[in-house]
Amino acid sequence: MLTEDRASQGISPVERLNTLVAADMKAADKLIRKGMASSVELIPDLARHLIDSGGKRLRPLLTLAAAKAGNYQGEGHIRLAAAVEFIHTATLLHDDVVDESTLRRGKVSANLVWGNKPSVLVGDYLFSRAFQLMVETENLTVLGILSRASAIIAEGEVMQLGSASNLAVSEEHYMKVVSAKTAALFAAASEGGAVLSGRGSDFVAAMRAYGENLGIAFQLVDDALDYSGRQALMGKSVGDDFREAKMTLPIILSVKRADEEGMIFWRRVIETGNQTEADLHHAITLVEQTGSIQETMRRARAYADAAKKALAALPASDIRGALSDIADFCVERAY
Amino acid sequence: MLTEDRASQGISPVERLNTLVAADMKAADKLIRKGMASSVELIPDLARHLIDSGGKRLRPLLTLAAAKAGNYQGEGHIRLAAAVEFIHTATLLHDDVVDESTLRRGKVSANLVWGNKPSVLVGDYLFSRAFQLMVETENLTVLGILSRASAIIAEGEVMQLGSASNLAVSEEHYMKVVSAKTAALFAAASEGGAVLSGRGSDFVAAMRAYGENLGIAFQLVDDALDYSGRQALMGKSVGDDFREAKMTLPIILSVKRADEEGMIFWRRVIETGNQTEADLHHAITLVEQTGSIQETMRRARAYADAAKKALAALPASDIRGALSDIADFCVERAY
Repeated sequence: MLTEDRASQGISPVERLNTLVAADMKAADKLIRKGMASSVELIPDLARHLIDSGGKRLRPLLTLAAAKAGNYQGEGHIRLAAAVEFIHTATLLHDDVVDESTLRRGKVSANLVWGNKPSVLVGDYLFSRAFQLMVETENLTVLGILSRASAIIAEGEVMQLGSASNLAVSEEHYMKVVSAKTAALFAAASEGGAVLSGRGSDFVAAMRAYGENLGIAFQLVDDALDYSGRQALMGKSVGDDFREAKMTLPIILSVKRADEEGMIFWRRVIETGNQTEADLHHAITLVEQTGSIQETMRRARAYADAAKKALAALPASDIRGALSDIADFCVERAY
Repeated sequence: MLTEDRASQGISPVERLNTLVAADMKAADKLIRKGMASSVELIPDLARHLIDSGGKRLRPLLTLAAAKAGNYQGEGHIRLAAAVEFIHTATLLHDDVVDESTLRRGKVSANLVWGNKPSVLVGDYLFSRAFQLMVETENLTVLGILSRASAIIAEGEVMQLGSASNLAVSEEHYMKVVSAKTAALFAAASEGGAVLSGRGSDFVAAMRAYGENLGIAFQLVDDALDYSGRQALMGKSVGDDFREAKMTLPIILSVKRADEEGMIFWRRVIETGNQTEADLHHAITLVEQTGSIQETMRRARAYADAAKKALAALPASDIRGALSDIADFCVERAY
């Protein structure tokens, strides 16, 4: 099988899917370049900083793959893919302001180079551009899906903000945040591509379920990686969530499983935010000792499996094979 | 004439127009309440802070008036009006972050109460809600107009940012900023309402021209007021633009007309940003002595007249009369 041959050559399934939709991705990339252009130079300068920094374009890839899996013949999926990438980039820019993170994709984050103000405004620009591109698809259903997802993303970010430093945050609350801030865009990106193809509601529901479950798995793995020390290898800040006292699953589980001494530690570093760099190392030790990373990864695996299961509604194809392998890859990248 | 009767009773033309579209405004207000609801409590709390703080709802008023002037019979204008107010509120929230302004509509600005993070994210939420409401109008032309306007607003804000502290900024550059950051939404709010009504392109163009010229006049007056000391009476910070070293028309003209001593002053307070509170008083003196406020107001008057002239394409009506008087009122509020 082609799939296995390529896999054995060490090509990641994301690259494989990229190859399967190469012409469409090239066209989407062209629209992305065009969309971030402006006579106001700071806009393309700042946007390029994020868009050229080697992101995997995973979300637009889902849109293009869903449209192709649905045998869509039009041009709307190109515009939608570019729009999805713009929405994602806008949230990253606003997240940079919000979280005062210092590294993003291995580069100094935009707000440290240009300041908070341009990051907010260029994010707004890209967000508006996203809607312009979606209007050009002339598909109101797709516009409804993506505008709803955008509202949910913002809701999720606010929810996350409100639960920082709060050791009492429940697993249920955390899952709501993950569904909203991450999975909503994965789901909408897949669903949007599927809707454009005009195939039946089973296909649309399957692609939506795939995107949603993949998005949750993706975020769980990300949250585990932030306490694994491997983030440094990926060019990301290590311990970002720790420093921001974000209540991610590794911490929620560790707190649940903490002994008295552990609780004293978590109260100091998370609740009161009184931290030193050495505390991060101790946090990683506690998170690992309590099995919280393994449990987070176990749950990520379950969502990845659910994503794969959703694909059963699709006829077998190279696209389906690559999407399925991406779900595995999403979890395996942690090992 | 009814118009003159009411005016003589001391009712502002904005209130008069509000009365003429009272039922529609009530319905739009209901949608605004509904749209800013969320199970994430911080969202309505923060949104309410701005939306309840006594803004004049001028932009949604233009949408409702344009639709009524075009004899529109549907419900879309209510949704569009709410969407326009959400876009405006989102830009205010992001502007609060951006400009570190301390007062907005006489209240402590949202970012000082809740911090920058929630202001950015709640802005994003309202912006997304705006698009959801516009999708519900099922009118792609309107969606195109408003999404384009949103991109232009962000562009204008970035442009303004880039020209802060730069004494060489031209009047032409300033006018571009004003057209983009303020007039674009006034124009789109009016045009959108007109488009919904399905009337001819002359009517649409007239309403757009009215909104655009009114928006420019409105901003010129705002910029003049920031150096007039009257802002305090309106519950706004006085000297906001000065402190942020914004290159507004009063400063551009003053710099042009400055003697050597004046230039030394402007270089210190605007270019290097080395200011004390006493400098604001001296700035106001210079701006007045050089006739820069009068010149700014003279130009505002010209745009207000252009706005009124655009209304000639409409048949006479109470709405047209109120819109015309609003253009005058916009300039006269400064005296």
